Amino acid sequence: MANKDRLYLGIDLGGTNIQAGLLGADHKLLATDRLKTKAEGGEDTVIKRIGKVVDSVLEKADVKIADVDGLGIGAPGAVNHKKGIVINAVNLRWTDYPLAKELERTLGIPIVVDNDVNVGTWGEFIAGAGKDYDELLGIFVGTGIGGGLVLNGDLYHGHHLTAGEIGHTVIKADAGLGRRTLENLASRTNIVNQLRQLILANHPSIISELTEGDLGRVRSKILAEAFKKEDPLTLEVIGQAAHYIGTAIANTVTLLSLPCVVVGGGVTEALQADWIELIRDVFEEYVFPPELSKCKIVASELGDDAGIIGAALLAKQRLEKD
Amino acid sequence: MANKDRLYLGIDLGGTNIQAGLLGADHKLLATDRLKTKAEGGEDTVIKRIGKVVDSVLEKADVKIADVDGLGIGAPGAVNHKKGIVINAVNLRWTDYPLAKELERTLGIPIVVDNDVNVGTWGEFIAGAGKDYDELLGIFVGTGIGGGLVLNGDLYHGHHLTAGEIGHTVIKADAGLGRRTLENLASRTNIVNQLRQLILANHPSIISELTEGDLGRVRSKILAEAFKKEDPLTLEVIGQAAHYIGTAIANTVTLLSLPCVVVGGGVTEALQADWIELIRDVFEEYVFPPELSKCKIVASELGDDAGIIGAALLAKQRLEKD
Repeated sequence: MANKDRLYLGIDLGGTNIQAGLLGADHKLLATDRLKTKAEGGEDTVIKRIGKVVDSVLEKADVKIADVDGLGIGAPGAVNHKKGIVINAVNLRWTDYPLAKELERTLGIPIVVDNDVNVGTWGEFIAGAGKDYDELLGIFVGTGIGGGLVLNGDLYHGHHLTAGEIGHTVIKADAGLGRRTLENLASRTNIVNQLRQLILANHPSIISELTEGDLGRVRSKILAEAFKKEDPLTLEVIGQAAHYIGTAIANTVTLLSLPCVVVGGGVTEALQADWIELIRDVFEEYVFPPELSKCKIVASELGDDAGIIGAALLAKQRLEKD
Repeated sequence: MANKDRLYLGIDLGGTNIQAGLLGADHKLLATDRLKTKAEGGEDTVIKRIGKVVDSVLEKADVKIADVDGLGIGAPGAVNHKKGIVINAVNLRWTDYPLAKELERTLGIPIVVDNDVNVGTWGEFIAGAGKDYDELLGIFVGTGIGGGLVLNGDLYHGHHLTAGEIGHTVIKADAGLGRRTLENLASRTNIVNQLRQLILANHPSIISELTEGDLGRVRSKILAEAFKKEDPLTLEVIGQAAHYIGTAIANTVTLLSLPCVVVGGGVTEALQADWIELIRDVFEEYVFPPELSKCKIVASELGDDAGIIGAALLAKQRLEKD
């Protein structure tokens, strides 16, 4: 395919799925595909499966690998982005794995690796809800809570390369172990656990009906339905989670004087604008100085594609800078 | 005076005192002096008194103003360092005051203005406890709690120029108004209030003796004496404050992946190494990932001079960069 635009592949490598996309001009995805990760098969299996999903995306887009300028990949866990190494990824069972080197050998194009949350944050910064700002916090609320920072127009990794771990900040200093951090208090895992416990303790909720009594089935979709139908118990538990998230965002904006926060992740996708509104109300109450309430708190625009778009855009940034 | 080294003046402008110093080679102060601020006399009075203390310092050092390359000044409150304006300083009763312009007109040398806590942080970064690091948090515990950030080798101000306000981060999310933030929970103001209340409620403490029953006399010095003598009530209240400070530091290092935190301010000056030890213990328990416990938590080295040294060094950095 003749194309004057530079082409980049983006991969979102998760413990369960590998998502891939080819990014063209104007930050548009020309083709996407996904495949099970099968991490249990070991590192070589995962590398082969990345190769397979890349082939499929290129075929769909009618592009040869030789016409692709580079590939970016977001990996779960601790990453040394400078060396392209996954230091530790529990979901993949990887330790000190030279992902960039291995993929470069297989695919024959330059590879850029970063943490999956950083990659999603970069996507929102360049092509999503944060594109009008020079700095931002990206916060993603799902089974856990991850964060990424863009400061002075670039991803901020920090001296030890682990920056952004907002989910592990303590916001209830005197609470017991496992009840102190933002992730403890406001992840979907905790929202669902709390709802289950309250329902089992005979608090009435529409969720009993929606799950047909099988509380193991509570996922974001059911949460969203109960939230939309204004189930009082769901509103209470989700309101509390939003309160903690708004507090942690206020802390970060107070510390870093940011102009924008992008809120994403599965819970945000499911609950949408009303959820952002709850978070924003608490943020505005707690941020200091009060003038910082002008900082924008906005929902992710790229949703589930933030990872693949961000990875491709990060490859573009790093490789065109060199 | 013949001098090939460039000379910079540093001013620490407080609500009560103006401190000034002339910085020579090797970050050594050639002369210092101080004068009451007399902010109640209005802006012109303060400008004149800055001029007066500068004259005195220059005379002591036998240096002419014409041989000084610039002056840095740290002002309390919100500052626009780019424009040299004090946006709001409650202690000085100033709003949108063009401090750099007014001083430049009076003294005839280039002026650099920043927030007092930023200036102290910069002093520790270049010439004090943080000089071996590329990034750090400076946290100053006194009547309030202030913070400054150096990221990627430069002071970090943030988009809205207010960055560093760690004292206003919430660490007890469910506590009542006035009991939520770090400053609410761990400033000297709160330490002293708590001790007073407990003593008035008949908790025994050596402080009753040290103040001869006049609890209005509790200052850092008396706190330090009671702490050194291991007065149980003092140990309890100060231990609790250290717990909250260690938590807020852990949150900041978790978010920014820093290699170093410098702890200063009146309370730190008074309590010294044992206080740092208490803070470090909590920090190490709460920081994430656990590997970040290698971040150094150290006491300020410049103490009360951090402001004037930092201001002079900031003038040097900004003016030599231009």
